[in-house]
Amino acid sequence: MAAAAVAARPLVARQSSPSIDAARLRNRLERLSYHGRPSGGTFADGVSRVAYSTADLTARAWIIDEIKQAEIAPRIDAAGNIYARFGGDAKQPAILFGSHIDSVPNAGNFDGDLGTFAALEVLQAVQSAKLQTRHPLEMVLWAHEESTAFGVGTAASRIVAGDLQAGDMDRVWNGMKRSDAIRRIAGDPDKIETAIRGKGTWHAYVELHIEQGGTLDKAKIPIGIVEGIVSIHRYDVVIEGFANHAGTTPMGERQDALLAASQLTIAVREIAQSRQGRQVGTVGRIEVEPNSPNVIPGRVTLSVEFRDLSEAVLRELGEQVRARGAAIAKQTNTRINFTLASTNVPAIATKGVQDAIGRSADAMGLKTMPLPSGAGHDAQQIAKLCPMGMIFVPSVAGISHSPKELTSWEDCANGANVLLRTVLALDALNSI
Amino acid sequence: MAAAAVAARPLVARQSSPSIDAARLRNRLERLSYHGRPSGGTFADGVSRVAYSTADLTARAWIIDEIKQAEIAPRIDAAGNIYARFGGDAKQPAILFGSHIDSVPNAGNFDGDLGTFAALEVLQAVQSAKLQTRHPLEMVLWAHEESTAFGVGTAASRIVAGDLQAGDMDRVWNGMKRSDAIRRIAGDPDKIETAIRGKGTWHAYVELHIEQGGTLDKAKIPIGIVEGIVSIHRYDVVIEGFANHAGTTPMGERQDALLAASQLTIAVREIAQSRQGRQVGTVGRIEVEPNSPNVIPGRVTLSVEFRDLSEAVLRELGEQVRARGAAIAKQTNTRINFTLASTNVPAIATKGVQDAIGRSADAMGLKTMPLPSGAGHDAQQIAKLCPMGMIFVPSVAGISHSPKELTSWEDCANGANVLLRTVLALDALNSI
Repeated sequence: MAAAAVAARPLVARQSSPSIDAARLRNRLERLSYHGRPSGGTFADGVSRVAYSTADLTARAWIIDEIKQAEIAPRIDAAGNIYARFGGDAKQPAILFGSHIDSVPNAGNFDGDLGTFAALEVLQAVQSAKLQTRHPLEMVLWAHEESTAFGVGTAASRIVAGDLQAGDMDRVWNGMKRSDAIRRIAGDPDKIETAIRGKGTWHAYVELHIEQGGTLDKAKIPIGIVEGIVSIHRYDVVIEGFANHAGTTPMGERQDALLAASQLTIAVREIAQSRQGRQVGTVGRIEVEPNSPNVIPGRVTLSVEFRDLSEAVLRELGEQVRARGAAIAKQTNTRINFTLASTNVPAIATKGVQDAIGRSADAMGLKTMPLPSGAGHDAQQIAKLCPMGMIFVPSVAGISHSPKELTSWEDCANGANVLLRTVLALDALNSI
Repeated sequence: MAAAAVAARPLVARQSSPSIDAARLRNRLERLSYHGRPSGGTFADGVSRVAYSTADLTARAWIIDEIKQAEIAPRIDAAGNIYARFGGDAKQPAILFGSHIDSVPNAGNFDGDLGTFAALEVLQAVQSAKLQTRHPLEMVLWAHEESTAFGVGTAASRIVAGDLQAGDMDRVWNGMKRSDAIRRIAGDPDKIETAIRGKGTWHAYVELHIEQGGTLDKAKIPIGIVEGIVSIHRYDVVIEGFANHAGTTPMGERQDALLAASQLTIAVREIAQSRQGRQVGTVGRIEVEPNSPNVIPGRVTLSVEFRDLSEAVLRELGEQVRARGAAIAKQTNTRINFTLASTNVPAIATKGVQDAIGRSADAMGLKTMPLPSGAGHDAQQIAKLCPMGMIFVPSVAGISHSPKELTSWEDCANGANVLLRTVLALDALNSI
């Protein structure tokens, strides 16, 4: 975006200062929490609202009703994504914003939910302020984000971005075929390709989301401007030692695969911390054989995961961990084999969208900081189709995917208002 | 034993130099291997001959027949242990020697088997040399040593040593009641207390066994004189961190229970190696929650096991690992809780029996070295009743509880001859 363009056309938001309804936003988040709440629980007990479950179905039905009550017409695509469009020039590409309401099991009340209802607030704020936007405004509720159902690579936004393979609809999870799951939420698996959208469909995509990490909370900054969504390099590691009697094998004679795994786990942390930046490294899964108190572990498999915005950094971290692994194998008399099991490309947030978020927050007197998203989001997919940006609000103590997940109502409202202003700011731009 | 006693009464063994039949010993070990061999396998494929299994039953029947063929009368006690007594003055306590033929699953051909057939060789060697011993000589085949069936504390020699609790016969394993298992091998669970033997029953107990560790093999020494059977202190350790998103939680904010477990695993090794001696320390079992590649481990449970002949050393190692655990917990922002889950007292080999083994090996020109037994043995139980000693022979590469378990036929024969001479040497002693 050229700075001149902004100067030439003052922001609509500045002129009319529309605002979202914070009380309604909170009320909807609280009401959504009934769908998937543990029996006898309260809001603080969180939800289990896995995509395609009954809780997901009843929540979707209620939200569709809320949209209709607002006199906006919802539409469900073949993948089950819910869109709702309002205003603008139908010849212009719409500005898209939204999130998801499905959850991992035993989750909280903010991940996805906030961005979904904030999107509806944006439509209603523009509607009640009787603003005329140049571009149609479109909210979206992505049908399935967490990939709990059907596993990695089955998020509904992937289909929209064109990631659709033969046989995808035939995957089975918990005894349910994916095509049947999509039918359950009123999608149409027989015409699934109609859910695919091309480049140019949207002017921009903006997603408000909780940070899920503790950076904003710790820094006491209400608005995070996402620089991009990290890439993940995941390694499957196999360590082969020799299983032997824990009583009769002297310390010096051992080929202890768990000892090697322990050294590698510490090395992963050291490598992740050995440079400036926000890269992270995790050993989250480990399996030991034979896993008996009186047998020296003979074989360990574990996962090593590095995340960063830069592919070059990730490759370097990978080289470092392989080198450390080789040294550990030599020292512990084991064999260590690394396989790069999965990678995904990072999605960089569009500079023009980041700037619009920054200016919107500034106008509200809210401090901002740039930060990467360490978690995956639907925005990662939609970035393939149009300019993309994300707004983060603080997660108390950085807790997420837990009933303890918490964002203050004030931060929720601020995030939604920044989303509203950002959408209006982007509406003013011919190109981003 | 007073040295004067030996000088006054030259050893019977020195006078007649009886010897075991090495070819017959090998032949019996090879024939035993058919009982429990994997289908289509060879001797090198090892055996699975778990106590009370069909393989165990057919092997026992064959061995009973072998004993009878040697014109010695076998006897089965109420616990299913097979005894066979030969010669001596019936008013004197017998000298007992033997081992077991049950195995862990997927085991080798020497653990227990060698000591059992060497015991029969001792009887036959004395028989064919027409030696008159002062004490009756008694071989024993312990019915169940490995504790695979019915678990820890169910070895048949424990009953003989008086370790029998109400309800012991009612334990169930693999759908089989322990009383029924004992009936299967011709024991009598209704009179199980008759298997208990008192102090003074035996003049001494000697067991020949493979080392199961690599000390003798590495030192190229054919005979090990066991100093005692180690005590085990086993700790159950629970590490509580905080499970959080592996993408969104900065390295500095983590409470990674697996990182703490890794540091503790390395600490256990360092502590075991930090002093002179043959103590060992092992982390053999570890369970991680939630054990997912993209979640920082929130909780780890693991086992720490220390083994040594000295209870005082074990207590000190325990104090050290607790102290290191406290420091690790502080550094990793986790909580670490230790529970001393099980201990057993060490069994020290009687000096007089150790001396007899040493003199016997010397007489054969075989080098010896003293060493502890890191594994448990029936000798540990029988040490409660009479003087006890154990003879170890080398395990190639220290491998045990594996089809790769191997001891050379020469070492087997040497061990059996040392057992024979040791028994005769002990026969010459009035007190040990």
